[in-house]
Amino acid sequence: MIHLRPFIFILAILLSIQSNSQTDEQVIREIYTQSLTNGKSYDWLNHLSNQIGGRLSGSLNAEKAVAYTKEELEKLGLDKVWLQPVMVPKWVRGAKEYAYIETKSKGFETAKTTTVNICALGGSVATNPLGIKANIVEVKTFEELKALGEEKIKGKIVFYNRPMQPELISTFEAYGGCVNQRYSGAVEASKYGAVGVIVRSMSLRLDDYPHTGAMSYGDLPNEKRIPSAAISTNDAELLSTMLELDKSISFYFKQSCKQLKDVLSYNVIGEITGSEFPSEYMIVGGHLDSWDLGDGSHDDGAGVVQSMDVLRLLKESGIKPKRSIRVVLFMNEENGLRGGNKYAEVAKQKGENHVFALESDSGGFTPRGFSFDCSDANFNQVLNWKPLFKPYLIHYFEKGYGGADIGPLKTDAVVLAGLRPDSQRYFDHHHASNDTFEHVNKRELELGAATMTSLIYLFDKYGVNPIPNQKAIKN
Amino acid sequence: MIHLRPFIFILAILLSIQSNSQTDEQVIREIYTQSLTNGKSYDWLNHLSNQIGGRLSGSLNAEKAVAYTKEELEKLGLDKVWLQPVMVPKWVRGAKEYAYIETKSKGFETAKTTTVNICALGGSVATNPLGIKANIVEVKTFEELKALGEEKIKGKIVFYNRPMQPELISTFEAYGGCVNQRYSGAVEASKYGAVGVIVRSMSLRLDDYPHTGAMSYGDLPNEKRIPSAAISTNDAELLSTMLELDKSISFYFKQSCKQLKDVLSYNVIGEITGSEFPSEYMIVGGHLDSWDLGDGSHDDGAGVVQSMDVLRLLKESGIKPKRSIRVVLFMNEENGLRGGNKYAEVAKQKGENHVFALESDSGGFTPRGFSFDCSDANFNQVLNWKPLFKPYLIHYFEKGYGGADIGPLKTDAVVLAGLRPDSQRYFDHHHASNDTFEHVNKRELELGAATMTSLIYLFDKYGVNPIPNQKAIKN
Repeated sequence: MIHLRPFIFILAILLSIQSNSQTDEQVIREIYTQSLTNGKSYDWLNHLSNQIGGRLSGSLNAEKAVAYTKEELEKLGLDKVWLQPVMVPKWVRGAKEYAYIETKSKGFETAKTTTVNICALGGSVATNPLGIKANIVEVKTFEELKALGEEKIKGKIVFYNRPMQPELISTFEAYGGCVNQRYSGAVEASKYGAVGVIVRSMSLRLDDYPHTGAMSYGDLPNEKRIPSAAISTNDAELLSTMLELDKSISFYFKQSCKQLKDVLSYNVIGEITGSEFPSEYMIVGGHLDSWDLGDGSHDDGAGVVQSMDVLRLLKESGIKPKRSIRVVLFMNEENGLRGGNKYAEVAKQKGENHVFALESDSGGFTPRGFSFDCSDANFNQVLNWKPLFKPYLIHYFEKGYGGADIGPLKTDAVVLAGLRPDSQRYFDHHHASNDTFEHVNKRELELGAATMTSLIYLFDKYGVNPIPNQKAIKN
Repeated sequence: MIHLRPFIFILAILLSIQSNSQTDEQVIREIYTQSLTNGKSYDWLNHLSNQIGGRLSGSLNAEKAVAYTKEELEKLGLDKVWLQPVMVPKWVRGAKEYAYIETKSKGFETAKTTTVNICALGGSVATNPLGIKANIVEVKTFEELKALGEEKIKGKIVFYNRPMQPELISTFEAYGGCVNQRYSGAVEASKYGAVGVIVRSMSLRLDDYPHTGAMSYGDLPNEKRIPSAAISTNDAELLSTMLELDKSISFYFKQSCKQLKDVLSYNVIGEITGSEFPSEYMIVGGHLDSWDLGDGSHDDGAGVVQSMDVLRLLKESGIKPKRSIRVVLFMNEENGLRGGNKYAEVAKQKGENHVFALESDSGGFTPRGFSFDCSDANFNQVLNWKPLFKPYLIHYFEKGYGGADIGPLKTDAVVLAGLRPDSQRYFDHHHASNDTFEHVNKRELELGAATMTSLIYLFDKYGVNPIPNQKAIKN
């Protein structure tokens, strides 16, 4: 018998030298090539979107998505894959909503009705079973609402119609300028005795899709909770024009949505345990839940499958991380953030040292870069890496928001990062029935996964500054 | 009567000071705001695409597009609008093409046929009226074809199946690596006695759309010209697999396309005459013709309407150019470049001093920047402007290709520039029946128009270096 061991040992050393001798340029090129020629993200998204579909927290589809992604992660040969239990809210839409505008011509008894496209906002109460009909008052701001006061609002439906600003280059900024109408519109309107709320959909496009999304009643007592729905942008324009012509028109809507008891669900987690610093954790994730109208391909099926592919691409590219890299598929980002909070809570309980967290939750469009919520020292390190990303047209490296799910992990030392894809088309699909698979481009999705993997590779290799303004631990 | 004149004069001076005192940042912000809130490009594209449609050179639709764009330019209050006559080739597709793969199972007399999606390449001859049926040989390169030689090729159909490389980040680079199969495939195959050519569509997506595009027989005599068609990528994969299993399968195709006599058409030109240097010309353009399968929204309806909007946005933003700015809508880029050649020829005859030319012919996607074919001095000037574009996420400023239509204007002194939009989805639609209006996003189109306008504003304001490596004329 020939002694093979020494040869294998030498071979291992040689392979390790070869791998270590690769420049960052070469490793990153390999990551992109793997993703574009041998990526799995698009296939996974196809299954999530077309075999499962919309994955609202607490729904059967959400549980199917948990089972599917766990099974797929298990196939990757990671060091650990597990489910992290978390109780989530369960809100159900019920029957399709129905709404119309009613006008009465002078001198005629019969009313004319014009059907419009609405959908209940997530978390809203139902109308009474026969629906609500009332006069409707358009406002653009809460200040305007306040100025009208109880005298003009009581017994009426409030129509929030402040559009997203088209001149802003970042559509997320435009969204941020409007979303308080959706989230807090009901609480504000109920102060003045309104009986319902209709909100212009958060979209820059004029079309017929109503866009749902979370709203909150805060600590409003049950009897003060008024039903809230979104109306498509085309119908918001129509309603506004009709109101300009005749303030006495009525609006009717009917919705049968319902908040049920919390149910058990899960974050799905997979890990490659670090070879040198296993107790330093770097996570990458997206959220597994989605709204129910579309199939949640952009929000956030894309982030889920990209995050899964990050761990696979590391392995396929022959990278053995020094630190423990986890993919975390968060449950319930859309209407509760329970998964993100739970993950951070457990990490704290266990004393796990999280040094880095990356989230992809801005759609599967061409990646442009990242925004970073971190210390100057870590940000400056990132800026030094910019040239490595130039061949891939990744140019956006700015301080800013990381992501909702990873937010609860925030400390002075951790680096939070958010993938920043091109944002122009995101809100055309966001929370609407046209957030579907055919609107995700395979290459754009794969470029995102490669870009995320490259950032994780660099942070794993060069380390994260443990405390702001101290020298980075360069391993 | 009160003397108003002095007041008006003072007012004019004040307004002029205000306008001149605007920083470049302010002017560019105004251009983007105008385009995003008050742009015309999307409406124009809607008409070109949905009221007119595909605009193949020499077709009735192409003439409709000439008339429509001239009329729209005339509404803008430019200093001049005119048509520049140019003779263009007229190729017609005729009846829809038809093709199938024929397999014979051993021991059975009857053949099984599988229909596949093809389209004639632009410029191809027809098959005979009953179609061609022959054995088919797959090759990836002209070298492979040559190695097979007459013995293996004579009497057969050649199937070029080299795919675009997915690992290249620029899809235009991937296209450049394959397009010789389409353009010269027939000439090469006919050397060895092939009777027809089938080319894998130039697309990175696997789908059912065949993509047409120009091919050339060079100076091949008529009797040696063999029919050429593109096959969809899905069917190229199918055909390749079937050939792997059985080399004896036959391929049938039938097409009735035809090259007619040249006909008269036009470039459409509009001009704002310069206030200080009217004999220095800066042009911006796209091509008005398109292929016939789709409606040519991305190629190049987008470039046409963006170029038209550049002149309108300059006016709307209160910019009075020092140099003469022309929009040129070129005819016949796709299969002849007659419009581009004619424009340059007339410019030369008239001794017009063209200092700058910008083309948009890469789709209506989110703009990323420009490539420049110019002297170092002019390119360095551009690099100094980069920070002005940063708020609009315009980051790509590289030396490279300007554009096909403006190419004939090239001299040592002129600056040629090409708009570079995000390229990931371009070849999903290029020259295929799915190059249609609904695949153009309004904001992305408008951002492109604003980006082009901003570059023209800067070159007009700061001037173009007349001779390489000399100091720029700073006006």
